Amino acid sequence: MQGLNGLTPEVTRALGQAAAHPSAVADSIKALHPVEAIEALNQLEPRLAAGVIEHLPEAARISLFNTPGLANSSAVMELLSHGCAGGLLAEMHPDRRAEIFRHMDKDHQEALREHLDPATRASIERIMAYPRDSAGGIMTTDFVSIPADWTVEQALAHIKDVGGARETVYAIYLMHPSDKTLQQVVSLRQLVIADRKASVLSVANNRTPITVTPETDREEVARLISRYDLLAVPVIDADRHVLGIVTVDDVIDAIVAEGTEDAQKMGGMEALDGPYMQIGFMEMIKKRGGWLAALFLSEMLTATAMQNYQSELEKAVVLTLFIPLIMSSGGNSGSQATSLIIRALALRQIKLGDWWRVAVREVPTGLALGALLGIIGIVRIVVWQKTGLFNYGDHWFLVALTVGLALIGIVTFGSLAGSMLPFALKRLGFDPASASAPFVATLVDVTGLVIYFTIAYVVLKGTLL
Amino acid sequence: MQGLNGLTPEVTRALGQAAAHPSAVADSIKALHPVEAIEALNQLEPRLAAGVIEHLPEAARISLFNTPGLANSSAVMELLSHGCAGGLLAEMHPDRRAEIFRHMDKDHQEALREHLDPATRASIERIMAYPRDSAGGIMTTDFVSIPADWTVEQALAHIKDVGGARETVYAIYLMHPSDKTLQQVVSLRQLVIADRKASVLSVANNRTPITVTPETDREEVARLISRYDLLAVPVIDADRHVLGIVTVDDVIDAIVAEGTEDAQKMGGMEALDGPYMQIGFMEMIKKRGGWLAALFLSEMLTATAMQNYQSELEKAVVLTLFIPLIMSSGGNSGSQATSLIIRALALRQIKLGDWWRVAVREVPTGLALGALLGIIGIVRIVVWQKTGLFNYGDHWFLVALTVGLALIGIVTFGSLAGSMLPFALKRLGFDPASASAPFVATLVDVTGLVIYFTIAYVVLKGTLL
Repeated sequence: MQGLNGLTPEVTRALGQAAAHPSAVADSIKALHPVEAIEALNQLEPRLAAGVIEHLPEAARISLFNTPGLANSSAVMELLSHGCAGGLLAEMHPDRRAEIFRHMDKDHQEALREHLDPATRASIERIMAYPRDSAGGIMTTDFVSIPADWTVEQALAHIKDVGGARETVYAIYLMHPSDKTLQQVVSLRQLVIADRKASVLSVANNRTPITVTPETDREEVARLISRYDLLAVPVIDADRHVLGIVTVDDVIDAIVAEGTEDAQKMGGMEALDGPYMQIGFMEMIKKRGGWLAALFLSEMLTATAMQNYQSELEKAVVLTLFIPLIMSSGGNSGSQATSLIIRALALRQIKLGDWWRVAVREVPTGLALGALLGIIGIVRIVVWQKTGLFNYGDHWFLVALTVGLALIGIVTFGSLAGSMLPFALKRLGFDPASASAPFVATLVDVTGLVIYFTIAYVVLKGTLL
Repeated sequence: MQGLNGLTPEVTRALGQAAAHPSAVADSIKALHPVEAIEALNQLEPRLAAGVIEHLPEAARISLFNTPGLANSSAVMELLSHGCAGGLLAEMHPDRRAEIFRHMDKDHQEALREHLDPATRASIERIMAYPRDSAGGIMTTDFVSIPADWTVEQALAHIKDVGGARETVYAIYLMHPSDKTLQQVVSLRQLVIADRKASVLSVANNRTPITVTPETDREEVARLISRYDLLAVPVIDADRHVLGIVTVDDVIDAIVAEGTEDAQKMGGMEALDGPYMQIGFMEMIKKRGGWLAALFLSEMLTATAMQNYQSELEKAVVLTLFIPLIMSSGGNSGSQATSLIIRALALRQIKLGDWWRVAVREVPTGLALGALLGIIGIVRIVVWQKTGLFNYGDHWFLVALTVGLALIGIVTFGSLAGSMLPFALKRLGFDPASASAPFVATLVDVTGLVIYFTIAYVVLKGTLL
C-alpha cells in the first residue's frame, strides 16, 4: 500500500532536531501529502509544530490546515504570528477555518479578527452561529452557484474560472435568476456529458433537491447523504437561500466521530473529546469516574436487597454460591438486547413507536435463552452432585431447580429491560447509546436478586427456608 | 426536510392492493426518487415486490437495484422472470450486481448465467472471486480510464461520450499507453479547470497515487478514503493493472456496517446479517445463545470459586452482602477500558505495540477510580452502621475496610484486564470488538471473588474468619 509507510528515516531525523532547526523539518515534509506531513507534525509539541509551519511554503501550510487530523490545530494556530495565522485563515476552506477558530481562546480570536477581511469574518461568524454538531456548524460557505437560466457552456466556463479555489465543484447550485433562491442542483457529471448549448436547468433532475436546515443534526445530514448517495447537501434558510453546503468527506468524519461517541457511551462512560493517548489523567478520571460512581451508588441497592434476605442467606448459604452466575447472566442478556436496539434505532431500522413490537419479540427470545441457560445450570449442579465434586446438601435437586427457574426469569427480564431502556432514554430526550452494558447490568442486578430469592422462597419453603 | 416525508396516501393505498393490481403500485412509485420507491417496496413481501418491479419502466427498475436498501434484493431478483432479471443485471452497476448475484441461490445463479453476455459474466466472476469484506468484493469494474498521453480536451470528449453509463466519472485513471499499468489519477475537477490543450499527465498531481489490492480489508479501504478525502480508490493487481475502483458511497455503507458489527460484538453477541426486525426467531437465538452459553459456562467458575470459600461464607455471611456490588464494579471499570481501547485500535489511534503504554496509563487510572469507589463504599457502611440502618456485626469497621480495599484491587484489575483484552484478541487474530463488556465482566468476576476473599482473609483473620 502506498502512502502509509510511516515516516522516512530522513523525516524522523529532522523531527529530532525540530527545536534547533525547524526549517530542516519544513524542508523534509513540504513535498509530502498533507496527511503524511500531519503525521510527522503530530510527533511534535504544539510550539515546535508551529515553528516548523512558519517555515513551510504558504500553499503547503494551507493544505495542512485544510486537512483534518492535525493534533491541537487551534493551539498551533494560536502560536503562529498573527500575520501568518491571518493569511492562513483567509485562504482556508471555510468549514475547517470555522472549526479551528471555534476552538481558539477568546483573546486570540479577538486579536486575529483584526487581521481578517470582512468576507472571511462574516463566513466565520455565520458558521460559528450554529452548534458544531449541526449542519450549520459543519457546512462550508464555499460552493459553486450559478443563475438557473445559464447554458451548460456558460456553467462550465464559470467552473473553469472559479473551480480551483472552491472546496468542491461536483455539485452546482442553480439559483432563481431574480430572487436567488435555490431552484435545482446539477452535478458536474451531468454538465460534462450534456450538450453544451442546453440550458443547465434542462440537464438537472426535475425532483425537488434534497436540502437541510442549519439546525439539522449532523447525524441526520450523514444519514441523508449516505441514503441518497450525494456528494454534498445544501443548507438552506427559511427563504430557500443557500447558506452553505455539507460535503461527503465531512460526513464521513461525522459518522466516525458519532460511532466513537456511541462506543464510549455504550461502554459506560462519557464520550472523550480526543484520542485515548491525548486525554490527560484528570480528564480521564472525570469522564470515567462520574459514571462509575453513579453506577456504584445504584448498585448499592444490591447490598440493601441482600440485607433483606439475610435470614434466608444464613439458613441457606448454598444459595449464595450461584449469585454471581445468575446476576451476570441477566446482565449479559440485557447487554445483548440493548446493543441491538441502540444500533437499530441509530440506523432508523426501528422507530420510537416500535417499542411494543420489540417487546413482543424480546419476551419469547428471553424465555428461550433463559431456558437454554437454565438447563445448562441444572445439568451442572446434577453432574457435580452425582460425581461427588461438591455436595449441595440434602435438597440439592430443589437448589438446582431454583437456579434453573431463576435463570429463565432473569434472562427474560434482562432481555426485556435491556431492549426497552434505549427507547425510554430516547423518549426522555437522552442519547439511547447511554444505555450502556453497565447501566443495564445495574438495572437488572437488583431485580435479579429479588427474582432469585422469591423463586428460592417458593421452591425451598419448608425444606431449606 | 424534503424527500423524507414518508409515503403519500396515494402510494399507501396502492400498496394495499399490490397483490391484485401490481401495475397500479408501479404507476404510483415510478416517478419517485429510487430511495423512496424502495421505502414503498420494502412494505411488501418479496413476491409482491417482484410483481410490481416487473411493471416498472426499465430505467426505474435499474436505478432501483443500483440503490442500496431494497430488502431481500437477491430474493426479489430470483422471483423476476429470467428475461427481466438478465436485462437488469446487464445494465446494473457492477458492484451492486455482484452483491445481489452473490446472495442468490446456486440454482438461480446457474439459470441466469445463460442470460448474461460474456462481459457481464466476467465482471461478476471477477468481483465474486473476493470476499465481500475486501476491496475486491466491493469494487466496481465500471470506471473511466484513458491513455496517459492524451490531452485534457481528448479526455473531456471521452468522458462526454462514456460518462453517462459509468458509475463515477470524478476520478479518471491514466494508464501507461503501452503496458496499460496505472500511472496517475486525475480528478474531473482538475480536468475541468485545466487548459484544454495541456496533457492530462501535466494536470495530475505528481504524487504516487493511493491504491489498494483486492485483498485489502474494506475497513482499511474506508480508512484510506476518509483519511485522504478521496472520492474513489483504485484496486490494482501485482502488475499495477486496475481491476476496479471502490467509491466513497460504498465506503460510507461499509463504515456504517462495520460500526453495527462492532456494536453488536461489543454487546456480547455475534453480529447479525440484517436489520433487527428482519432476523428470524431461530437465527436470533443462535446469534445470541452461543455467546450467552459460552459466557455462562465461563461464569460457572464463579460458583466453583465460591464453593472454595464456603467455610468463610458460613462464618461471615456479612461478606456475601457486598459480592454483587464489588463484582459489578470490576465489570464496569473493565467495560469502560475495553470500549476505549477497541475504538482507539479501530481508529488506529494506538497500535498493537502500544499495549504497554496503555497498561502504564490504566494502572494508575484504575487505582484512582478504585480509591474513589472504595471511599464511597466505606462511607456507605459507616453511615448505615452509625445510623442504625443495618448492623454489620462487631467487626463492622474491618468489614468496611475489606470492601474498600477489595474495590481498589478489583477496579484496578478490571481496568487493566479490560484494556489488555482487545490487544490480546487482536494479537491472536480475532476482532478486538469481540472483547465485549460481558466477556470482560466474566473475566473479571472470578478474579474479583479471589481478590475479595483474599483481602477478607488478611483483614478479618482472627476476628470473623
